[in-house]
Amino acid sequence: MVISVIGTGAIGGFYGGMLAHAGQEVHFLLNSDYDWVKEHGLTIDSPNLGIIRLPRVKAYSKATDMPPSDVILVCLKSIQNEKLLPDLLPPLLKKDSLVVLIQNGLGVEKDVANLFPEVSIAGGIARVSASKVSPGVIRHFDHGRLELGSYNPAHSRRLEEVAVTFQTTGLPIVPVADLQALRWRKLVWNITFNGLSVVLNTTTDQLVGHPETARLCREIMLEVIAGATACGMELPSSFADEMMAYTQRMRPYSPSMKVDFDQKRPLEIQYIYQNPVAAARAAGYEMVRVDMLAKQLAFLNEKNGY
Amino acid sequence: MVISVIGTGAIGGFYGGMLAHAGQEVHFLLNSDYDWVKEHGLTIDSPNLGIIRLPRVKAYSKATDMPPSDVILVCLKSIQNEKLLPDLLPPLLKKDSLVVLIQNGLGVEKDVANLFPEVSIAGGIARVSASKVSPGVIRHFDHGRLELGSYNPAHSRRLEEVAVTFQTTGLPIVPVADLQALRWRKLVWNITFNGLSVVLNTTTDQLVGHPETARLCREIMLEVIAGATACGMELPSSFADEMMAYTQRMRPYSPSMKVDFDQKRPLEIQYIYQNPVAAARAAGYEMVRVDMLAKQLAFLNEKNGY
Repeated sequence: MVISVIGTGAIGGFYGGMLAHAGQEVHFLLNSDYDWVKEHGLTIDSPNLGIIRLPRVKAYSKATDMPPSDVILVCLKSIQNEKLLPDLLPPLLKKDSLVVLIQNGLGVEKDVANLFPEVSIAGGIARVSASKVSPGVIRHFDHGRLELGSYNPAHSRRLEEVAVTFQTTGLPIVPVADLQALRWRKLVWNITFNGLSVVLNTTTDQLVGHPETARLCREIMLEVIAGATACGMELPSSFADEMMAYTQRMRPYSPSMKVDFDQKRPLEIQYIYQNPVAAARAAGYEMVRVDMLAKQLAFLNEKNGY
Repeated sequence: MVISVIGTGAIGGFYGGMLAHAGQEVHFLLNSDYDWVKEHGLTIDSPNLGIIRLPRVKAYSKATDMPPSDVILVCLKSIQNEKLLPDLLPPLLKKDSLVVLIQNGLGVEKDVANLFPEVSIAGGIARVSASKVSPGVIRHFDHGRLELGSYNPAHSRRLEEVAVTFQTTGLPIVPVADLQALRWRKLVWNITFNGLSVVLNTTTDQLVGHPETARLCREIMLEVIAGATACGMELPSSFADEMMAYTQRMRPYSPSMKVDFDQKRPLEIQYIYQNPVAAARAAGYEMVRVDMLAKQLAFLNEKNGY
């Protein structure tokens, strides 16, 4: 099985690296880190998994140099898909390629399916704490579960085979029946803490540690839960309490959108905020607080030049 | 008529100074500016009114040195009332003193009436752009209308007499029948731009100039209008469009709460946000966005040490 990774950051480097370490054939497309990785390879530094060194990996700076692939992991920021995939994806496609979007938010599969109507699309939700600390070096903090779901149910059998191959990594990589329900579930945390940490310039511990913002976090979570429920993915309101308790136990954490903002990168507002707001609205529910947060983020994003 | 001013900042300095300039007997209580004003007096520097110099004013550093007064203008920040007025007000009170709270927000009269149940209380809404640029120097930019309303309708006759005396300044200083309705009306602008300018670290022109925040501004205004209407002060939704157009015509402006925040002074969250939210809620209407803004502000205010 030929596997390619588009976007070798924290997520692409971690899952691609773990697959290569397990003996799979993995081709990595890189941008700014290409020279370094070509020479030094990849390293995954993890308290649980140890230090995994891959001194030689198949690194590429151009998609046109890469082989047609059975599985293509797209690990770009979701908002880059529309701009980059029309060039990057076609050279990797062959009959029966499966494109797996390991990205945040709602609606990524649909937008890529619109760009490539003939291609099999799946989505992945990565439950992993990892960040790229320098070129080719991924620091893995915790977790690693990857949930994979087909966009088109006709391809779910194919996805199950892919999941079996991916399980050679030793990580819990599991096919799921209803990816959209899991995307909403993940949005409960992501919408709340990504946005508030950017707007209030703070970390998760501060947000749940201050009584006024703790109440606000819970209210936003309940709104997302109601939005999910309106869209047919029922979630119990007790899930908000679970997520609050989980966040209170976490170490102080800067969500990925806060890291993007601080580094003046564009924010994934469309997929994490605007698409869920629009989906809930179409189902008759107005996520007022989420929409307000989206507008505040759009303002700040524009100040960063986007 | 003996007039005293508690809190000689932009508002107290402007109205007190204009009264002194008109020949009224005005006593000014000062804090950090006392020494300077004692020696140099007050200056009001205005494009419309010219430069008004009052080289000698009756300045005090202690309320206990001041005379019992017929009218006491309270021009503190609203959130200082509870802490400061129990000490500052009693020395100035005599039979028939009228205490006029020229302050922002909702509920200031009620809280001061609770502290001083025997005293006649009125409220004032200042429609003025002014700021204190250095000790004893008030820069007046525009406007100057002052609306005065009794908290207890039994004192409205008294307030009309006071308004007549105040009109010797040449400013439009007018008694109004329903102060609370005007307070809500002013909140439409104040709630929207004070909070968003703090949370998004910006000025009014930026907020109305970016499409996403312009929409959000209008939504917040409509929420306040609905809150006012729920509380029995009916306002047409077209008032939001008026306020948007008015703000688009204004020069770039930092609302008073933004100035307070930047100078690390406490924010008037209780009177401008929390009291209106509670009043609307008691009337059966939830101002969701205003409440969210209040919580964001409370978080930022605490980071400033309050």
